[in-house]
Amino acid sequence: MTPAKVLRNATVVNTSVEGGYDFERNVTLILKDGEIKAIVDDQGLIEALSDSPIEAEIDCQGRIVTPGLIDCHSHLIYGGNRIDEFNARMAGATYAEIALGGGGIKQTVEMTRSASFDDLYEGAKARMKTMASYGLTTLEIKSGYGLEFETEKKMLSVARKLDGYLGITITSTYLGAHSIPKEFEGDAGGYLDQILNHDLPEMIALGLCDAVDIFCESIAFDTLATKQLLGAAKSLGVGVKAHVEQLTSTDGTAVVVDLGGLSVDHLEYISDESIAKLANSKTVAVVLPGAYYFLREKKAPPVDKLIKNKIPIAIATDHNPGTSPLYSLLLAMNMSAVLFGLTPSYALRSTTKNAAMALGFRDRGEIAPGLRGDLAIWDLEDPNELTYQIGGSPLWGRVANGEIYV
Amino acid sequence: MTPAKVLRNATVVNTSVEGGYDFERNVTLILKDGEIKAIVDDQGLIEALSDSPIEAEIDCQGRIVTPGLIDCHSHLIYGGNRIDEFNARMAGATYAEIALGGGGIKQTVEMTRSASFDDLYEGAKARMKTMASYGLTTLEIKSGYGLEFETEKKMLSVARKLDGYLGITITSTYLGAHSIPKEFEGDAGGYLDQILNHDLPEMIALGLCDAVDIFCESIAFDTLATKQLLGAAKSLGVGVKAHVEQLTSTDGTAVVVDLGGLSVDHLEYISDESIAKLANSKTVAVVLPGAYYFLREKKAPPVDKLIKNKIPIAIATDHNPGTSPLYSLLLAMNMSAVLFGLTPSYALRSTTKNAAMALGFRDRGEIAPGLRGDLAIWDLEDPNELTYQIGGSPLWGRVANGEIYV
Ligand SMILES: [Zn+2]
Ligand SMILES: [Zn+2]
Repeated sequence: MTPAKVLRNATVVNTSVEGGYDFERNVTLILKDGEIKAIVDDQGLIEALSDSPIEAEIDCQGRIVTPGLIDCHSHLIYGGNRIDEFNARMAGATYAEIALGGGGIKQTVEMTRSASFDDLYEGAKARMKTMASYGLTTLEIKSGYGLEFETEKKMLSVARKLDGYLGITITSTYLGAHSIPKEFEGDAGGYLDQILNHDLPEMIALGLCDAVDIFCESIAFDTLATKQLLGAAKSLGVGVKAHVEQLTSTDGTAVVVDLGGLSVDHLEYISDESIAKLANSKTVAVVLPGAYYFLREKKAPPVDKLIKNKIPIAIATDHNPGTSPLYSLLLAMNMSAVLFGLTPSYALRSTTKNAAMALGFRDRGEIAPGLRGDLAIWDLEDPNELTYQIGGSPLWGRVANGEIYV
Repeated sequence: MTPAKVLRNATVVNTSVEGGYDFERNVTLILKDGEIKAIVDDQGLIEALSDSPIEAEIDCQGRIVTPGLIDCHSHLIYGGNRIDEFNARMAGATYAEIALGGGGIKQTVEMTRSASFDDLYEGAKARMKTMASYGLTTLEIKSGYGLEFETEKKMLSVARKLDGYLGITITSTYLGAHSIPKEFEGDAGGYLDQILNHDLPEMIALGLCDAVDIFCESIAFDTLATKQLLGAAKSLGVGVKAHVEQLTSTDGTAVVVDLGGLSVDHLEYISDESIAKLANSKTVAVVLPGAYYFLREKKAPPVDKLIKNKIPIAIATDHNPGTSPLYSLLLAMNMSAVLFGLTPSYALRSTTKNAAMALGFRDRGEIAPGLRGDLAIWDLEDPNELTYQIGGSPLWGRVANGEIYV
């Protein structure tokens, strides 16, 4: 018999679609083969174990247990940092001045190209460790700081190697179309051709990406390019998503929805037409309050309209060195409440069930038998406190892939 | 001989008045009797020890060492929390609705009055532990959720008992004049008389407070009341400070400056006249970005004008359950940069040297022989990263009152 792990005396929390929570108190969770095998009361324990030996047993002492948190949008792998740029910005430098000085994404591209595989791996691993301390069990990581085949491949290979560290699932996204590289300055079409004819099919053939993303924006790739790239990706069998409507309203959302995409991300400038389009789709709306905060943006994504239209919203850190050096998904939840007006219970749904949907996972984001053994155990009485408190570390323990990390 | 503790291979960081940092690399710090005894190179070690036995020795491996962080404004001791209020606010409730429902500060006063000494102590102690994880070594705590003698005394006694936990110095401030209690509704003068005639002199006679504070604002106490209370406090020999100009411009700053006060706190609405007044004083300007962020305020304190007038600015968490449930002084530093425009090096000075000044301490806030052994050791290469990163925990070790906590 496979051995089982047992969490006793847990208060299981699930978010409901309508808002608020479902609580199951004084329950015992049985984990086996990396899965939640059963949720029982103490009487049901012996029967549910069906002779499996107990390998580990933890008394949660009534603490609340939520699904492990899922961060569905990050740029965690990069060389260098952008502290000098932040410093210059705080001292009054404009973006134009920073870009002229070789700063901005160009700087990160240079430093990521020149970084070794090991340096990228160690840097991202250290960041994952901090993120795990806030209850993380699944993390999406994008490429996009290479903008040429070898570095993009290096980034995605690092992401693959990070999979499973501290039990965290890594899902990797090819974002070669993050920006136009200097080699193709003024020739977005030329770079897109290279991606379509070589980089994309090769990356997929190598099994290095689970999805494809693009920065669809006035300053990057237009909606036609988005349609071409994501259409090609879809026909090659991977999920598609896009950074859309962060700075201007475009048809980017419609393109992603028409392709049955996983998510549209940012959405500060999403139009009512795009919202209507989203409302009749399975595509998730991902909002990124860290970048909104760090860049002191003024226009928040219209979360009230999204909710009114029953569009599922996910929240992510968007961790990246230039616009969101944010480690804590809890803090992203707090920012989504304070800055965007999401309620605390919705914020928790946004980093569990809805974030799982945004990544195409059906096996996580809730607590139920048969789902993956990904849980967070919190030293709190009220799950709303996860979103209310700022900068605390209320995590008591974490279960990832059925393994217990206390 | 008193035994010594030794930190080898440290990169000592001090902030300069002009901005930027002074670095001393590859140095050895010797701690003795709770103090920084000497800062030497390896050759100087044996001489500086002057035969003291070495009790503990740590290799900092080149990590940066800053003064321990100082939080000069908090309301850390309280009963209950205000999560329901936050939840209601995010769901669209107005402040008027919340106050009518018995929420707001009234709720915290009720729960603090009914809480036992032990519950208040354990709650605040747990919060201090989280704060320590961000490098804290000195913390100011205010009373102000009793609004009657016995509860105010209970709060200040809890603060006294917390002193020294994890090596952290607690300095306690009597804030009986935080709000008008229900027993004196509509009669601020009556409550002030009780404070002046009984509560204040008694609290000082009991040795329970190091300073006195008042909420000087249209909705609380006016500048005349502020002058009376702080004048009385000063004549009784304790430091004075005030919450001023958070919601409206008043003469509160001038009153505090004329009394030679320690600090004026909040300052969103400070006038040019008050700035001129501050510029010719020893009083520190304390800004509180946590409350500004959490309440989504639109008017930031004019830090550029304060700096131009060479007024020292300190940053604090203002930790409190209603308007700033913020645990991390690092996050307060980040918010002061992102939201108010302070530079990272200034932000570090604001939570070390300037925060020490705001509390009247001359023995800390910098790293020099003879000063208190309060240090933070960070797993970072660049001190600007303390302010740049959001939600990380880069603390590697902490030294408080000469004791090493790694
Ligand atoms: Zn992004
Ligand atoms: Zn305050």
